[in-house]
Amino acid sequence: MKIYSNELIFIEVEKSEIPWLKIFPIKKYKELSDCDEETKKELLNTMLIVEKTMLEYYKPTKINIAMFGNYLPHLHIHVMARFKEDSYFPEPMWGKKQRESKLNLPNFDGFLEKLLTKIIQ
Amino acid sequence: MKIYSNELIFIEVEKSEIPWLKIFPIKKYKELSDCDEETKKELLNTMLIVEKTMLEYYKPTKINIAMFGNYLPHLHIHVMARFKEDSYFPEPMWGKKQRESKLNLPNFDGFLEKLLTKIIQ
Repeated sequence: MKIYSNELIFIEVEKSEIPWLKIFPIKKYKELSDCDEETKKELLNTMLIVEKTMLEYYKPTKINIAMFGNYLPHLHIHVMARFKEDSYFPEPMWGKKQRESKLNLPNFDGFLEKLLTKIIQ
Repeated sequence: MKIYSNELIFIEVEKSEIPWLKIFPIKKYKELSDCDEETKKELLNTMLIVEKTMLEYYKPTKINIAMFGNYLPHLHIHVMARFKEDSYFPEPMWGKKQRESKLNLPNFDGFLEKLLTKIIQ
């Protein structure tokens, strides 16, 4: 689900038990180094805003960030709020499942409101 | 093995079949948002230099970047050159092994020389 878009980037939500957003450049770049300077700056700046908002709102155990794109050759940045009781912690979300988990997290809509306020500031 | 250090960051090599570096802030920050501005800028700038040098030198299928730190609460950025014939591709290096692989890559010393030249420029 797309939650934000401007002239350079857009943000999607990844369906998951954890808060997990993906930031894409609008133009289909493969690597961060391929991006024009303005897009690169916007991607990294948005990544930092998402991280900061997740830290403030969800108070996670750790933020995880990843840029893989091995399946989908369209650069994107995963930003994930991780909790010590989530199904994979301390493994990455791509690692071995550690437990059955039922997280009780603050409302996503509240997070989204805070995030969009920060982004359009 | 530490291959570079300045007043803000240091770079280590991760032992792996693929070219894989880890960039740490000297000060033990947990999250990217916790870093002072100068350190954050140096970390992200060094990440981009490592990515670019890997792309030029190894011509990998894809660059993978990750910041997890779930086991080790000292922020670090993994930068990995991935190849379609490596043991895990297209899975992340933390995913399920796909095959036995024997990569035939250009010499690491040559890469290191190019990288350090770029970093100290």
